[in-house]
Amino acid sequence: MAVSALAGLAAQLPDGVVVTDPDILASYRHDRAADPAAGMPLAVVRPTRTEEVQTVLRWASANRVAVVPRGAGTGLSGGATAVDGGIVLSTEKMRDITVDPVTRTAVVQPGLLNAEVKKAVAEHGLWYPPDPSSDEICSIGGNIATNAGGLCCVKYGVTTDYVLGMQVVLADGTAVRLGGPRLKDVAGLSLTKLFVGSEGTLGVVTEVTLRLLPPQPSACTVVATFDSVEAAAGAVVTITGRIRPSMLEFMDAVSINAVEDKLRMGLDRSAAAMMVAASDDRGPAGAEDAEYMARVFTEAGAKECFSTSDPAEGEAFVAARRFAIPAVEAKGSLLLEDVGVPLPALAELVGGVAKIAADRDLVISVIAHAGDGNTHPLIVFDPADAAMTERAEKAFGEIMDLAVSLGGTITGEHGVGRLKKPWLAGQLGPEAMELNRRIKAALDPDGILNPGAVI
Amino acid sequence: MAVSALAGLAAQLPDGVVVTDPDILASYRHDRAADPAAGMPLAVVRPTRTEEVQTVLRWASANRVAVVPRGAGTGLSGGATAVDGGIVLSTEKMRDITVDPVTRTAVVQPGLLNAEVKKAVAEHGLWYPPDPSSDEICSIGGNIATNAGGLCCVKYGVTTDYVLGMQVVLADGTAVRLGGPRLKDVAGLSLTKLFVGSEGTLGVVTEVTLRLLPPQPSACTVVATFDSVEAAAGAVVTITGRIRPSMLEFMDAVSINAVEDKLRMGLDRSAAAMMVAASDDRGPAGAEDAEYMARVFTEAGAKECFSTSDPAEGEAFVAARRFAIPAVEAKGSLLLEDVGVPLPALAELVGGVAKIAADRDLVISVIAHAGDGNTHPLIVFDPADAAMTERAEKAFGEIMDLAVSLGGTITGEHGVGRLKKPWLAGQLGPEAMELNRRIKAALDPDGILNPGAVI
Ligand SMILES: Cc1cc2nc3c(=O)[nH]c(=O)nc-3n(C[C@H](O)[C@H](O)[C@H](O)COP(=O)(O)OP(=O)(O)OC[C@H]3O[C@@H](n4cnc5c(N)ncnc54)[C@H](O)[C@@H]3O)c2cc1C
Ligand SMILES: Cc1cc2nc3c(=O)[nH]c(=O)nc-3n(C[C@H](O)[C@H](O)[C@H](O)COP(=O)(O)OP(=O)(O)OC[C@H]3O[C@@H](n4cnc5c(N)ncnc54)[C@H](O)[C@@H]3O)c2cc1C
Repeated sequence: MAVSALAGLAAQLPDGVVVTDPDILASYRHDRAADPAAGMPLAVVRPTRTEEVQTVLRWASANRVAVVPRGAGTGLSGGATAVDGGIVLSTEKMRDITVDPVTRTAVVQPGLLNAEVKKAVAEHGLWYPPDPSSDEICSIGGNIATNAGGLCCVKYGVTTDYVLGMQVVLADGTAVRLGGPRLKDVAGLSLTKLFVGSEGTLGVVTEVTLRLLPPQPSACTVVATFDSVEAAAGAVVTITGRIRPSMLEFMDAVSINAVEDKLRMGLDRSAAAMMVAASDDRGPAGAEDAEYMARVFTEAGAKECFSTSDPAEGEAFVAARRFAIPAVEAKGSLLLEDVGVPLPALAELVGGVAKIAADRDLVISVIAHAGDGNTHPLIVFDPADAAMTERAEKAFGEIMDLAVSLGGTITGEHGVGRLKKPWLAGQLGPEAMELNRRIKAALDPDGILNPGAVI
Repeated sequence: MAVSALAGLAAQLPDGVVVTDPDILASYRHDRAADPAAGMPLAVVRPTRTEEVQTVLRWASANRVAVVPRGAGTGLSGGATAVDGGIVLSTEKMRDITVDPVTRTAVVQPGLLNAEVKKAVAEHGLWYPPDPSSDEICSIGGNIATNAGGLCCVKYGVTTDYVLGMQVVLADGTAVRLGGPRLKDVAGLSLTKLFVGSEGTLGVVTEVTLRLLPPQPSACTVVATFDSVEAAAGAVVTITGRIRPSMLEFMDAVSINAVEDKLRMGLDRSAAAMMVAASDDRGPAGAEDAEYMARVFTEAGAKECFSTSDPAEGEAFVAARRFAIPAVEAKGSLLLEDVGVPLPALAELVGGVAKIAADRDLVISVIAHAGDGNTHPLIVFDPADAAMTERAEKAFGEIMDLAVSLGGTITGEHGVGRLKKPWLAGQLGPEAMELNRRIKAALDPDGILNPGAVI
């Protein structure tokens, strides 16, 4: 059925939009979660305009074909994993941007990469803050669909804080405009915010209006190493209770060593933890904050503590932190967690993960956006080793259970996708799950959009 | 039917929760919008706990009785207007607060006033930013239901930016917990954000978890007067393109004079516009910003420009701005608008309002959170004068039409309520209206909650 119907879809779209080449299809099966259960799509569709997205969804609804929206495929929770017999709708050809420096807004198509958005607005002397470590490779549409976070969000908030409006195509092909270039607008329900973080389950974002800021002031950076994780975690709580750092990142011994293996920048291989912190408050205030953080780190028992107001020097440490995931990935395949906890539970979470690692005989590295309580335990395993893979999968679940037991979340920024779906109900409870289902059913009654993801 | 059923409700609740005294009922018919079409409620219910709210809603759903949630009744759009034969559910007795300085969060019941929340968290050295001018008289639950803004939101954002989680009771009496004291959490749809700004149409908020900041640094304040509104509006756009002021407020000639009538503080009665601006960036940066704003004001043609780093002196001008609504109210009854536009349209909006005032032979004062493009045209009229009242109502609609024609919104922060409902579809368009209706129907299929408001 669907294959013959597909010709009908292709006929409604410009040449080349619908792709069925098996090699190309294969390359769209996975995102960075590399879900082994990924299906084989019927087609990949690469529209360039909202109207084409509407055509695809009208067709999909009429033919009851699943549609998986896909940005740049850097997702870590399997949210863009292809489903058998479905369509992968890739936004990669939707790359326009218009910056309005007077309203400090940008209207962007979803396929533009985060770093490209940052660059385009910087040409107008403006700044788009959200900075996932994947900024060079992830799309702004994917950022919106996952409500992506990053390093500066401890001070500047996450993606949703910068989305003023959007155009979204619903499962039935209706295109809806929500919000717009107005800094405050409470007319009607907060639907823009509902679509942010909806992981492709409620609609396809085809355009977005972003709020921009004047340029970020240059930051003072403080780096400190510790003999114990608890000492580092304690310092985090002290600092955030008093000042607003623009970055407060944590790396454990495994990630310090993995980064040092690759970058050879002289990191202390014997440290149990390293903090990379910054303040971008302007003028002497930033330096004062840096001094304060250095004092807190020292009083918490830091082995070494180093401050710099030189942006290039500071950036080297930030780059080291950003490089942590790829560096640990060099040790083996990764099951990448994204659990978050209320700040005081940070040390307990890291300690609990270490215990799980020991019990399961695994290497698990923890890096964290510590100022938000959002951690990334990285479970290293060898997929060729079935027993180890099974232990890694067990640990993956145990870490989420641990986070929830500490009052935390199974995902701070990567989304639920398909990989974390079995744990969602455990966190939300039956009432909130039911509410999620009611909203999904109201907007996508036939379950066309991203079936199998989140809910 | 409903009256006898009411005895059944009263029997399920502690003594005194259900009130039917006609004098008391009458005092709950209106909010500050003083809607003449307000109905007479069957009862006022004043629960103290979530479970009691559940009881009320279960009963209301079973008996198909409308429930109008009510905070402190300071709303300006008729969102808490009583409906005939319905229940007014007032949260005024739900006033607990627990502050956790370590996670920098507060768990608050909805009836506590905004200023009380600010005070309770200040005792722990913390700050809850959202600052509607009504802070002394409006409830935190009402703030959440309207997504209230204020003076500092040009830099610090609006209520939704500080809501980490909540407990909400749905129309059928189900209590749902959403979010929690986690700074980042993307597990499931963004339902917390959906309930913020839902104006009592989707559920009753019975508890909220707020994100708090370290204390606000003291600000440098700049006050400038102008011969023309355009000059003031032009300065706003220049300033926000370059720096992040913590306040950027506008008053027109009518409001300057109304405030001066009452406060006798020596404001320039001959000015066409006055700007009250501030920067709270720490240390010399705040003073630099103030200097920069003073320069921009001067270059834009300010008649007079005055800067101060003395908090008490600055606060006097902020108080004058805050006092503008009550001051203009002394001139007659008010129809209070809340239209917003993209920043470059600010002067055109203010000019258009002046034209409407002239055409309709009315006094309309405009004050504005200028840095957000959010204005409050205050239409002065005498309700005893039927012809004037009609002209005022006409102007009310014309101003909203004007704002929408300039790419703006009918409400920047006060909500749609009942008063602005006829204009909502004109702004949102049919697709977004339908989406609002689908969400409403999914959560409140029988239309129990706040019928007649918003959608
Ligand atoms: C090395 C590395 C570092 C990372 N660091 C971070 C980090 O610091 N912070 C962070 O938040 N994430 C991080 N990520 C995860 C990932 O980059 C983000 O989740 C990103 O937002 C995904 O964007 P994408 O374009 O790749 O989306 P995809 O992976 O293609 O899709 C992600 C989800 O969004 C949906 N989607 C995509 N586009 C649309 C659209 N237009 N409309 C509707 N739904 C859509 C998909 O269906 C899917 O559910 C990292 C990933 C890697 C590989
Ligand atoms: C002098 C003056 C100045 C003002 N200045 C500002 C300003 O600067 N910024 C601003 O944003 N507003 C301002 N307002 C408007 C008003 O104070 C706000 O809208 C405020 O948020 C309303 O709070 P309330 O407790 O009075 O709510 P109410 O008026 O009682 O209700 C408002 C709406 O919220 C709903 N609601 C209330 N509580 C709950 C709950 N617990 N659960 C679900 N729904 C609920 C009601 O049904 C209604 O729709 C001002 C008002 C006045 C009189």
